[in-house]
Amino acid sequence: MVISELLIRKIDTKTKPLGALGQLEALALQIGLVQQTLTPKLTKPAILVFAADHGIANSGVSAYPAKVTVQMVLNFLAGGAAINVFCRQNQIALHIINAGVNYDFQGQEQLIDASIGYGTRNFLEESAMTGEQLRQCFEKARALVKGVAANGCNVIGFGEMGIGNTSSASMLMSCLCKIPLEQCVGKGTGLNEQGLQHKLALLKQAQILHPQPQDAMEALKLFGGFEIAQMCAAMLSAYEQQMLILVDGFIATVAYLCALNINSNIYSNAVFCHQSNEQGHELLLNHLNEKPLINLGMRLGEGTGCALAYPIIQSAVLFLQEMASFESTNMTQKFNN
Amino acid sequence: MVISELLIRKIDTKTKPLGALGQLEALALQIGLVQQTLTPKLTKPAILVFAADHGIANSGVSAYPAKVTVQMVLNFLAGGAAINVFCRQNQIALHIINAGVNYDFQGQEQLIDASIGYGTRNFLEESAMTGEQLRQCFEKARALVKGVAANGCNVIGFGEMGIGNTSSASMLMSCLCKIPLEQCVGKGTGLNEQGLQHKLALLKQAQILHPQPQDAMEALKLFGGFEIAQMCAAMLSAYEQQMLILVDGFIATVAYLCALNINSNIYSNAVFCHQSNEQGHELLLNHLNEKPLINLGMRLGEGTGCALAYPIIQSAVLFLQEMASFESTNMTQKFNN
Repeated sequence: MVISELLIRKIDTKTKPLGALGQLEALALQIGLVQQTLTPKLTKPAILVFAADHGIANSGVSAYPAKVTVQMVLNFLAGGAAINVFCRQNQIALHIINAGVNYDFQGQEQLIDASIGYGTRNFLEESAMTGEQLRQCFEKARALVKGVAANGCNVIGFGEMGIGNTSSASMLMSCLCKIPLEQCVGKGTGLNEQGLQHKLALLKQAQILHPQPQDAMEALKLFGGFEIAQMCAAMLSAYEQQMLILVDGFIATVAYLCALNINSNIYSNAVFCHQSNEQGHELLLNHLNEKPLINLGMRLGEGTGCALAYPIIQSAVLFLQEMASFESTNMTQKFNN
Repeated sequence: MVISELLIRKIDTKTKPLGALGQLEALALQIGLVQQTLTPKLTKPAILVFAADHGIANSGVSAYPAKVTVQMVLNFLAGGAAINVFCRQNQIALHIINAGVNYDFQGQEQLIDASIGYGTRNFLEESAMTGEQLRQCFEKARALVKGVAANGCNVIGFGEMGIGNTSSASMLMSCLCKIPLEQCVGKGTGLNEQGLQHKLALLKQAQILHPQPQDAMEALKLFGGFEIAQMCAAMLSAYEQQMLILVDGFIATVAYLCALNINSNIYSNAVFCHQSNEQGHELLLNHLNEKPLINLGMRLGEGTGCALAYPIIQSAVLFLQEMASFESTNMTQKFNN
């Protein structure tokens, strides 16, 4: 029998009715297939949070000023953000990466420097980054993930922080999925209705300025940001390292969309963790035909959905490992029929 | 300011946009209110699994023979069931209670004896239990919960095992919610369409036999089972002990429905953990206007939904405890506006 059949048989002979653990059973099968074993294990889980600034942020597309990106990075480093709390709780290693924040971080030894510059350019005027910058994004992020994998990690989640990045993500989603911008643009972390209309009008201008990009790489170059390009590259690298890839909210799912356009095999390693409240996310998940593990109405990013879903992913592995089977117990009545 | 206002202010001044943690914020507020403090803590979490047999089980309402109840209790005691795995994972104390299984358990020191008899009577013929048996259910379950509370536990979940108990639960739901039986009856843990029609036809007979009960107590007496009555009493007792009450799937939510009919205040302490795949459960949750934390398509019972949701509940408490506030950081820009 092939490994998938053996895994299904192992799942089906656990002491429960067939299929009674629902999505956990599909997850156990997926993880077994990723690791090509009947006894998968999750080792040294890690979340990488990529932070970067966006040229578009100064055009009034966000409820918050761009300098909040810096402040939140400092908050991550001090251990005070939501992602810090949830990673500590669930014993997930947290790495904060400067992918291109508009600030000189000095003496912050815990911050990983993969900076491409002081934020992207404003894509209302020109392409968000140069081809060389995009190449650097891929090179730096891939190196990071390789290092984490070499350290024994086989399950990795990605989060982000970057004022203005829902604009970037909406542009990428619209052009790669061929879905009208109206349906891809949401309120981010706090725009009102008027702010939303302003954001949409600006992004429509950008769509006119930049002709339909040919592929994900060109789209990333046009609309950025550095953190989205690095997440995309990191996911591709995680797939190559045979890691389980935890996908967070809207921005992270757009990074996944880019990665999927580059390597269509990565879906086999991806676990969708949380459905965000950002309007485009549900649509994008439907487009990808994916159903996340949890839906708590959050809209924070930072990888928080990955951190919160992690214990459930661990549960899938543990039931496969630890639950009794009909053979291993004295159950005379096999109650799967 | 009253405690609710202080809690909301504490939540709103955490370093995140207003409302960005979604359902976790509502949960943090609820737990703070239950414990009447700005610094709630979850201590010594426990899950109590009540097992019992049902007279109706021999009428062909289940895909499995009644003796599976005994076999699963032995599996719980041996540590091999799904609920054992998830409780071990999340460091939840697990207590297995014989509420009335048709078996003489001997030498099983870990099994808590609260047995009312060797299963209920068949409610197709007579009331499932006597008034005296119902009284004993309440007395024994209340004593159990008091003991657990005295031991320092302030968050308690309830699970069940009992072949035939979705029939019992459907009868209770139909009469207490005044919803037609057709909408309350589902496939349990594995009936096919023919089996489902047979189950429905039998339960309709029972509804004709027993005139509309006056209240939850009479309904419990008529339709049982011992484990559902004990879960109902246990929830009432947990409320009195100011504990947080974790509500599992369909059967547990029906027990909650009974408890709510007896004391309408308990909703303030109840956290709905998981939406089951059993057809009546979604309807019942809508009736109660409750949205569970997770929906993984499981249909196993045993308290598994409570155990899986527990880390998320813990996350709600921890963000309130540990996240930085705008005041506590050097953030000059308060980004809630």
